[in-house]
Amino acid sequence: MVQRRKRLARGVAVIGAGISHFGAFKEKDSRDLFVEAFQSTRQTVERGIDPREIEAIYVGNLSSDCFEGQAHIAPLMAEWVGLNPKPATRTEDACASSGVALREGIIAVASGLYDIVLVSGVESMNKLTTGRVTDTLAAAADAIYEVSVGATFPSLYAQIATAHMAKYGTTEEQFMKIAIKNHNNGALNPKAHFNSSIRDIMNSRLARAKERGQPIPSWTDEMEFLKDPSANPIVAWPMKLFDCSPITDGAACAILAAEEIARNFTDTPIHIIGTGQASDAQALHGRKDISSLKASKLAAEQAYEMAGVTPQDIQLAEVHDCFTIAEVVATEDLGFFEPGEGPKAAEEGRTARNGEKPVNTSGGLKAKGHPVGATGVGQLVEVWEQMSGHAGQRQVAGVNLALTHNVGASGSTVVVHIFERR
Amino acid sequence: MVQRRKRLARGVAVIGAGISHFGAFKEKDSRDLFVEAFQSTRQTVERGIDPREIEAIYVGNLSSDCFEGQAHIAPLMAEWVGLNPKPATRTEDACASSGVALREGIIAVASGLYDIVLVSGVESMNKLTTGRVTDTLAAAADAIYEVSVGATFPSLYAQIATAHMAKYGTTEEQFMKIAIKNHNNGALNPKAHFNSSIRDIMNSRLARAKERGQPIPSWTDEMEFLKDPSANPIVAWPMKLFDCSPITDGAACAILAAEEIARNFTDTPIHIIGTGQASDAQALHGRKDISSLKASKLAAEQAYEMAGVTPQDIQLAEVHDCFTIAEVVATEDLGFFEPGEGPKAAEEGRTARNGEKPVNTSGGLKAKGHPVGATGVGQLVEVWEQMSGHAGQRQVAGVNLALTHNVGASGSTVVVHIFERR
Repeated sequence: MVQRRKRLARGVAVIGAGISHFGAFKEKDSRDLFVEAFQSTRQTVERGIDPREIEAIYVGNLSSDCFEGQAHIAPLMAEWVGLNPKPATRTEDACASSGVALREGIIAVASGLYDIVLVSGVESMNKLTTGRVTDTLAAAADAIYEVSVGATFPSLYAQIATAHMAKYGTTEEQFMKIAIKNHNNGALNPKAHFNSSIRDIMNSRLARAKERGQPIPSWTDEMEFLKDPSANPIVAWPMKLFDCSPITDGAACAILAAEEIARNFTDTPIHIIGTGQASDAQALHGRKDISSLKASKLAAEQAYEMAGVTPQDIQLAEVHDCFTIAEVVATEDLGFFEPGEGPKAAEEGRTARNGEKPVNTSGGLKAKGHPVGATGVGQLVEVWEQMSGHAGQRQVAGVNLALTHNVGASGSTVVVHIFERR
Repeated sequence: MVQRRKRLARGVAVIGAGISHFGAFKEKDSRDLFVEAFQSTRQTVERGIDPREIEAIYVGNLSSDCFEGQAHIAPLMAEWVGLNPKPATRTEDACASSGVALREGIIAVASGLYDIVLVSGVESMNKLTTGRVTDTLAAAADAIYEVSVGATFPSLYAQIATAHMAKYGTTEEQFMKIAIKNHNNGALNPKAHFNSSIRDIMNSRLARAKERGQPIPSWTDEMEFLKDPSANPIVAWPMKLFDCSPITDGAACAILAAEEIARNFTDTPIHIIGTGQASDAQALHGRKDISSLKASKLAAEQAYEMAGVTPQDIQLAEVHDCFTIAEVVATEDLGFFEPGEGPKAAEEGRTARNGEKPVNTSGGLKAKGHPVGATGVGQLVEVWEQMSGHAGQRQVAGVNLALTHNVGASGSTVVVHIFERR
């Protein structure tokens, strides 16, 4: 067997990154969202960039064909931001589509073929009804062995959650704590789908009930609110409404440059020092253990090894919390906490914005929103803002080493990246 | 503006390549077709390969989500050929999806991250009716500005055909000559969807009429057959049934290795010496001239420049003949013939298997078939067979320099590769 090289042929850095507003925008198409994200990205390049300097574009997208009847979205996005005739390639790995676009962009610059590339993701989901969105997403599971018997992602992640509960005694209340944390972060993110804490949401419901002369619920804090099935109904037990990320429209972009030219564009390039990707059986039944995602562990191992850092070194992480259980499992698989310790760590505030290991300061998929194809690059945008000091009210001080973790489906794709400010 | 590097950081070669049977296989899923192509590919590696040596997999696919309700196909294909947990990435650029998968595989090996990768493509289309296939494919055009007003690919390529006819006097008969040539080649390809010449098809229709006691048509040669609207009805004038590629199920794979290790696997690695990719406006109305595809010219220019060869040097080419007009335009855009001279060249037999510039010796998309996501790598498989002396009855002697040309949609993506046997 030949020996693997785990080093890229040359270094790559991020020189700018931005997202569109995330939310439910039925009146907007992918192209509209993409233009907004691209313009926002251009403005983050300190010394500016002429779009003609961008040599290729990678677009992560799960299913614009099913969501809006538009396949072949990469050259179209290139067209709408003036990048034709540059090579334009769509990558798809379910909800990891743009994490993978990021990785392909890094690889392309490392290959010597390009010096500057745009990596991006976009998804416009809200033109379909919730039921049809759920079905369209479900196609990313195993259509023959899972979907045919009624599985959708809430039910698949519910199985992961019950496995975790059975093995480690994890509780429904612990999942709720994660939702509260991520909404607290989202409340400070002006572009988030839910720019409000769960307490805000509770208070506005109370106010509305009062206004309408309806019976006033007795909630006095977020936990009471989340434990009330009328406020937080079960979607697939133990996952309830506030355990699930929303159906979001949005786009995200980042510009990568070869390390040796990055400082032509900015004094604070963010260096990409680790990348890892792994696959796994598509269906849950094909895996030995579902209280953990093997592909997360493997992708993280690759990224840590390339970067030469340990989980303890990471100062901030954006992880794939499509459901609250997913964040729990991610923080364990990434090595931040021992297996089974994720829930307790979150409960103790260790992953809060002011904790020792801030996780999902953007609000995460849960509150920032989850326009599936845009999520991977969207995570990088938060890391970029935090590392370049543009995270506003969410700013965590002195982040020099950060990580993004992007999952496709129930874990059959995982991609992990590690970033450094020098 | 920074200067572009147009060289890959290291050389890449093909060490094996194979396809599944191409045809209409309603009983088979993508995973079945893929396993067949992978097994066939393994057998072409002269000194064998342990699948564990494959470090990553790229899968081109246009729309398994719409065709068979299965998104996130890359890790699933990896699973079915035993390649989990290796990184598995789907690329989509309409009918150029696997031409782009090939390019991403090349870039990935060049980057130093991997030494050996599997590039591939797959499409299972025949579970849908012809009408629904046509609609699903049409999503690769501009959904807002073309599809909404009734455009489908036959009608878009018909517009390219009429533009070519108006500008150069190209005739319907000239298009027919290309169909005849490609079916003649397909008749010698045991894995082709149409493993029969148009004369064979005509003769079997005559025999059937005779058997059934129906009136016997007066066809005495292929041209009479093709000019008879009862045998060759108009699909979108001037494109008739036999100008259109069929709806095909199939898969194709190739294994790439870093140049320095390729000879561990085979004495005849095929070196990839040029790659080019370009994008263009999605809708035809966004282009200045539709008698030619600008993205083809640009992608070819890049590939020729990288390879240091000219169109005249190319000894064999597989070009994207989704419609006969597409082959005409391709042979001009690639610089094989002057603009407007493509039809005459084909008519004179210059692109026939025994001509000076054999084009689509596999039978092309027209006769070999067009499982859209598999087509790009499928073209490479023909080049591999020709260059390694395994093309059987189709064998062209002494091919040392060959080219593949893969088009997405009506030309908003084009990818071109150049291969050398040393």
